[in-house]
Amino acid sequence: MQTNDSPANSCCDRDHGTPDTYNDTVRSPISADGRPVLATTYVVPARHARAVKLDARQIIRITNTHGTQVCDLWVFNRNDLNEYFSIEHTRGKITRVNPAVGDVLLTNRRRPILRFDADTSSGIHDTLIGACDVGRYVSLGFEGYHDNCADNLRQALLAIGLRARAVPQPLNLWMNIPVSTEGLLSFQPTVSKPDDFVEFTASMDCVVVMSACPMDLNGINGKKPVDVHFEVREIN
Amino acid sequence: MQTNDSPANSCCDRDHGTPDTYNDTVRSPISADGRPVLATTYVVPARHARAVKLDARQIIRITNTHGTQVCDLWVFNRNDLNEYFSIEHTRGKITRVNPAVGDVLLTNRRRPILRFDADTSSGIHDTLIGACDVGRYVSLGFEGYHDNCADNLRQALLAIGLRARAVPQPLNLWMNIPVSTEGLLSFQPTVSKPDDFVEFTASMDCVVVMSACPMDLNGINGKKPVDVHFEVREIN
Repeated sequence: MQTNDSPANSCCDRDHGTPDTYNDTVRSPISADGRPVLATTYVVPARHARAVKLDARQIIRITNTHGTQVCDLWVFNRNDLNEYFSIEHTRGKITRVNPAVGDVLLTNRRRPILRFDADTSSGIHDTLIGACDVGRYVSLGFEGYHDNCADNLRQALLAIGLRARAVPQPLNLWMNIPVSTEGLLSFQPTVSKPDDFVEFTASMDCVVVMSACPMDLNGINGKKPVDVHFEVREIN
Repeated sequence: MQTNDSPANSCCDRDHGTPDTYNDTVRSPISADGRPVLATTYVVPARHARAVKLDARQIIRITNTHGTQVCDLWVFNRNDLNEYFSIEHTRGKITRVNPAVGDVLLTNRRRPILRFDADTSSGIHDTLIGACDVGRYVSLGFEGYHDNCADNLRQALLAIGLRARAVPQPLNLWMNIPVSTEGLLSFQPTVSKPDDFVEFTASMDCVVVMSACPMDLNGINGKKPVDVHFEVREIN
């Protein structure tokens, strides 16, 4: 195996941008280049993902149509996919575990990328648990192919001609991971309602990726994974 | 600016492996290749970092010599620095915010990399706050050069002929970031005692990087940043 011993050879080793597995996400972009028709509702089908390009100051609304679905959310600088929303850089600024309405999400270069503008749910989201991936399902005893958020992210980007090296920690919308006073975590169903939505305004030109999490081996998505929806509009 | 539109051109864009700033870390490896003399105490000087190579089944002890110092800890697969300790992948397994004695730390490929074997402190560590970097000190109003953990990591690796693309979320040893029941964070001094130590056993051949955090604009390192120490030994 090639090692990363120098800048010269470190740049082309295997990174985290290539899917391990594929589903229809890679063949189903919202448009060839990921640009949305404004004020149009798009579906993120259950177990799949979509990527959408936002210009700075455009607004995205993501709707938990059935109220029971976790949506993994990533945001990348559209002109440099090595820069992306980073919760650990954001926390130092917001001094809170999870972001809430009014907060500005920062990138791993500590620059604003999204502003959290609205949330009709009770504000229960997760930033502690990494995206599910092939290894997560293996560790849970699943055999064979399983849709997963990490590959959904990779495919959604590839579907619009983009590729990121990293699978950053997502903002897991509506994912309900209570933390006890002892720091213990548990995986619980969402507490959101049908048609709850969140809205964000882009602080820079960016690409937003949403995965309707396919986890069905614990209760986080209720009885089964279902669709979520989104739309993009200009600032009012 | 070059964009990451395809695998072909994405591999050589600017990544996160090159220091923004330098201190003596880059000129002060423990040895040319980072291999330690076993059972020998090494210093991580205040505000600086050191990298050390561990073979699988070797043990590292990191000592908070003065009891007041935060030590950012990273662990990379020595043969593929794109694989590294990832707290968000580990949390799904340990179902706890922070790791504790008995836990196995997993990589971003969900493979064991370190086993947490001993901790004489009360177990207060942090995994929520990203490593301090140039941007962090700018955001706190500091003007001019400031040592920082992200550049310390990069330099410590370069000092032994390695380079990682990412600055992963560190395990911030002894960093005291209490979380309120409302999820609010605060930056508090360590509660560890002089000569408290932690021990880990390597689950794979790896490189461990420790930065004696130079933060002196809030209280996390007490009155001022000081040294920590470490040593490596064979399994008993």
